[in-house]
Amino acid sequence: MLAEFLGTFVLILLGCASVAVAVAGLPGSGRQEVAFGPANWLIIAFGWGFAVVFGVYVAGGVSGAHINPAVTLAFAVRRAFPWVKVVPYWIAQLVGAFLAAALVYSVYSWAIDAFNTKAGVARDQSLDTFAIFATFPAKYFDGSWWGPLLDQVVGTGVLVMLIFALIDNRNTAPAANLGPFLIGMVVTTIGLTFGPNAGYAINPARDFGPRLWTFFTGWGDIALPGSYQWFSAYFWIPIVGPLVGAVIGAVVYDLFIGHVVAARVSGPEPGRVGD
Amino acid sequence: MLAEFLGTFVLILLGCASVAVAVAGLPGSGRQEVAFGPANWLIIAFGWGFAVVFGVYVAGGVSGAHINPAVTLAFAVRRAFPWVKVVPYWIAQLVGAFLAAALVYSVYSWAIDAFNTKAGVARDQSLDTFAIFATFPAKYFDGSWWGPLLDQVVGTGVLVMLIFALIDNRNTAPAANLGPFLIGMVVTTIGLTFGPNAGYAINPARDFGPRLWTFFTGWGDIALPGSYQWFSAYFWIPIVGPLVGAVIGAVVYDLFIGHVVAARVSGPEPGRVGD
Amino acid sequence: MLAEFLGTFVLILLGCASVAVAVAGLPGSGRQEVAFGPANWLIIAFGWGFAVVFGVYVAGGVSGAHINPAVTLAFAVRRAFPWVKVVPYWIAQLVGAFLAAALVYSVYSWAIDAFNTKAGVARDQSLDTFAIFATFPAKYFDGSWWGPLLDQVVGTGVLVMLIFALIDNRNTAPAANLGPFLIGMVVTTIGLTFGPNAGYAINPARDFGPRLWTFFTGWGDIALPGSYQWFSAYFWIPIVGPLVGAVIGAVVYDLFIGHVVAARVSGPEPGRVGD
Amino acid sequence: MLAEFLGTFVLILLGCASVAVAVAGLPGSGRQEVAFGPANWLIIAFGWGFAVVFGVYVAGGVSGAHINPAVTLAFAVRRAFPWVKVVPYWIAQLVGAFLAAALVYSVYSWAIDAFNTKAGVARDQSLDTFAIFATFPAKYFDGSWWGPLLDQVVGTGVLVMLIFALIDNRNTAPAANLGPFLIGMVVTTIGLTFGPNAGYAINPARDFGPRLWTFFTGWGDIALPGSYQWFSAYFWIPIVGPLVGAVIGAVVYDLFIGHVVAARVSGPEPGRVGD
Repeated sequence: MLAEFLGTFVLILLGCASVAVAVAGLPGSGRQEVAFGPANWLIIAFGWGFAVVFGVYVAGGVSGAHINPAVTLAFAVRRAFPWVKVVPYWIAQLVGAFLAAALVYSVYSWAIDAFNTKAGVARDQSLDTFAIFATFPAKYFDGSWWGPLLDQVVGTGVLVMLIFALIDNRNTAPAANLGPFLIGMVVTTIGLTFGPNAGYAINPARDFGPRLWTFFTGWGDIALPGSYQWFSAYFWIPIVGPLVGAVIGAVVYDLFIGHVVAARVSGPEPGRVGD
Repeated sequence: MLAEFLGTFVLILLGCASVAVAVAGLPGSGRQEVAFGPANWLIIAFGWGFAVVFGVYVAGGVSGAHINPAVTLAFAVRRAFPWVKVVPYWIAQLVGAFLAAALVYSVYSWAIDAFNTKAGVARDQSLDTFAIFATFPAKYFDGSWWGPLLDQVVGTGVLVMLIFALIDNRNTAPAANLGPFLIGMVVTTIGLTFGPNAGYAINPARDFGPRLWTFFTGWGDIALPGSYQWFSAYFWIPIVGPLVGAVIGAVVYDLFIGHVVAARVSGPEPGRVGD
Repeated sequence: MLAEFLGTFVLILLGCASVAVAVAGLPGSGRQEVAFGPANWLIIAFGWGFAVVFGVYVAGGVSGAHINPAVTLAFAVRRAFPWVKVVPYWIAQLVGAFLAAALVYSVYSWAIDAFNTKAGVARDQSLDTFAIFATFPAKYFDGSWWGPLLDQVVGTGVLVMLIFALIDNRNTAPAANLGPFLIGMVVTTIGLTFGPNAGYAINPARDFGPRLWTFFTGWGDIALPGSYQWFSAYFWIPIVGPLVGAVIGAVVYDLFIGHVVAARVSGPEPGRVGD
Repeated sequence: MLAEFLGTFVLILLGCASVAVAVAGLPGSGRQEVAFGPANWLIIAFGWGFAVVFGVYVAGGVSGAHINPAVTLAFAVRRAFPWVKVVPYWIAQLVGAFLAAALVYSVYSWAIDAFNTKAGVARDQSLDTFAIFATFPAKYFDGSWWGPLLDQVVGTGVLVMLIFALIDNRNTAPAANLGPFLIGMVVTTIGLTFGPNAGYAINPARDFGPRLWTFFTGWGDIALPGSYQWFSAYFWIPIVGPLVGAVIGAVVYDLFIGHVVAARVSGPEPGRVGD
């Protein structure tokens, strides 16, 4: 539990802070078109990717380093992870995410306040600074909940399918304990490929933990229930989408690949994330 | 077959989606000069590179993860891959590419429509959004078919020569199952070095599968036969060029290197892509 | 001692030079908003990250490659590094950093002078060129010393916690001598996540060595005691912050993880940085 | 010899092509301030770095993959590489570089001509397109030959010192045949840290081979003897600087590190580049 807490803490601390750099840290930063321009997007994509890399390296040897409730669910459904541990893992992940958001907030509160002062916007109207902590759908979805939900299902499906591949010793899993590096690069890749749709939460704790923190510290309706000019009550999508997508990704992997390699070899069992 | 299908599916899903991010996803995106500016080009180059990395990791242990008809051909010509399997592999790759384009389209249809509405352009006139799915030659070729064909031959030649090097255990092939990572970085590198000439298809399935999808969903002549203001009937170049280039790359490797290492050692045979 | 000197020399030579590229090297470079724009920030973050990678590869086999007084302190406190060696290591690191700054200055003196001439600013007023060598807090801290100090504590805490994880063979430490690569990527990540707050010194020698050099070569009060329009006497923060943060990071790792893995296995001891 | 030829061919083919992308390939490219802006600089730095990675992987198992006359010299001086092979290696490297420049020229001739037409500049006045092939000093050196010479000595010194570290099995050399990856990243790093001073040739063949090609194809005095508005007869600097720097780098490594590890262990000898 402690390891799962610390792994998720590292994930959210580094991940959210990379968005803070893009939004409010660098001297030329500004509102969305600038903050999420392509060079800043690389900062965010590699920031979150390495956040996963190091979150997994910290916790891998103890808890298996799920650091994501959707991954925990997929392991329970398809890899015999004990169901009785699912809820405790979820709680550890959520608490880790919440407290990491608190630390990001402590370090970046000066930058956030300066940003809002310069933009002449009150905190509870500042989607730009909220974006440091949690996710929201792109304007082009124009109120559709199906678009961002599909995005979260696809993104998390890819994540879990590739995690299953990268730890499957019957397949071509990387050796020399480099699995965590490549799993982090999966998240970088999802950022580079599906990120702008809905902020690639692909992890209920990653979104809900920091969202809760922003709700308690003044972002109001933007945080919970997650209301934007073009959307209302968004908060449930980065919870439900990832959980559904994770199970689909796990099933697809086993159907297309797991099956075949299991039949072919009677070798070592697939490992855990952090093995 | 299933593995080859899934590997190509992952390749095209992630690869095309990275172009979607650059063209229509990020808030500041716009027409070609912006969408293919240098920072977006890094997103696209690393997006496609990691798409290969993970496509190979998913399929490597089962099918050898060619995920490219030109690579399959090169293996048949120079590495004793059974000729009888060549056409089935090609079909699996093409179907995977086609269906992956369909999923990219599903997730990005809102963004695509918003982009075209803002640009005031009908879909069948929108080369910008077509670029998410398939390739076209740079304007500076000015109608020459020899330029982009040469580009495809050179690009695929480099790809196959380096794949042959990276899996050749008689040479200095990376161990610890990190070949797939470096093979993906070959594709990133080709994007950074030859990409702007003709979109670095270097893979007939990568171009023709999504091209077929765009033809069925409203891009008309831009998709097939591939007509642009400065070119007509482009579609055959990213098929013929890669097939020719792949064989040349394989022969060059064996002539300069394969020969020597084969004579020197009587050690293990060169591996498959996914080994 | 010689190895620790050379490792820190490589670190500062490459690291400071990457900032020189962003500030004064590239033809389009300019004052802060440009020099520290997002694409230049990637140059700086990967520049410093790889500087660590290669500093550790050079010195790892001899001295353990701390190349950072804060890391040396953490190893003394929690990993039985001999206290009697702490001060000699610190001196070797400081001398290496000072002389590396001298070499960066030699190579970039033309660029620095051209930059200041073009900007019409005397050297002792040029925070832009000082930034090549040492660090200063962001304007948004607005004179607060607690903000940058907290930033240095958090950044160095993360650094040391992750170094401890990445060399802990009882956990999931990378094998094949790839630890130095990943330790360097930790520093890249800290640059992408906390860098803009206070220049991510996270290493007393990295800041104070080059700062001393700039003091002797004409940057005056900006160098020592480190006075800017919005701050006075900054120099002690990147010394005290990292030393405090390093101990906290070491203790947190051992509390959450080291404990558990030590109890579980009686296997090999955790390695040194360069193992 | 064939392997050394092919390795250098791959190096120059990919490396020069990455500059072609930045200068003339991407739709928004333009004259120097744009072509060598920070995002394009990342394309060039990673382009050249991966060019080295794959040049070494291709040739490593046969010739040791020096692919650089300065590296060959350093191995002769300090690693008992047979002096009788030095000149043949140099010739193979130079011919490889020359022919690779020819292929880059073939593929990019359309882009080069379009660029010069748009800029209204004759080829023999076009430093921008010459930059695709060979190097020149930054304007801020203002005619000084000592500045770029020092830059080449320092850059190549760092390169050779780090190559010696990365293949020294008595130190912490990376295993699993990942040395070539990290050696390539050394070149990326030198690009990110010293590149803008004088184009980081750090390899006599890399500069002189393509320079010769441009001399034969119309760049005139810009190519040979290398005359620019602020400099005349530059061509000898990227030959002499790297040869001197390589020997210094080798000696420094052995003095500070090689010595110590040799005394301590009587283990395996340091390997070759490609081992």
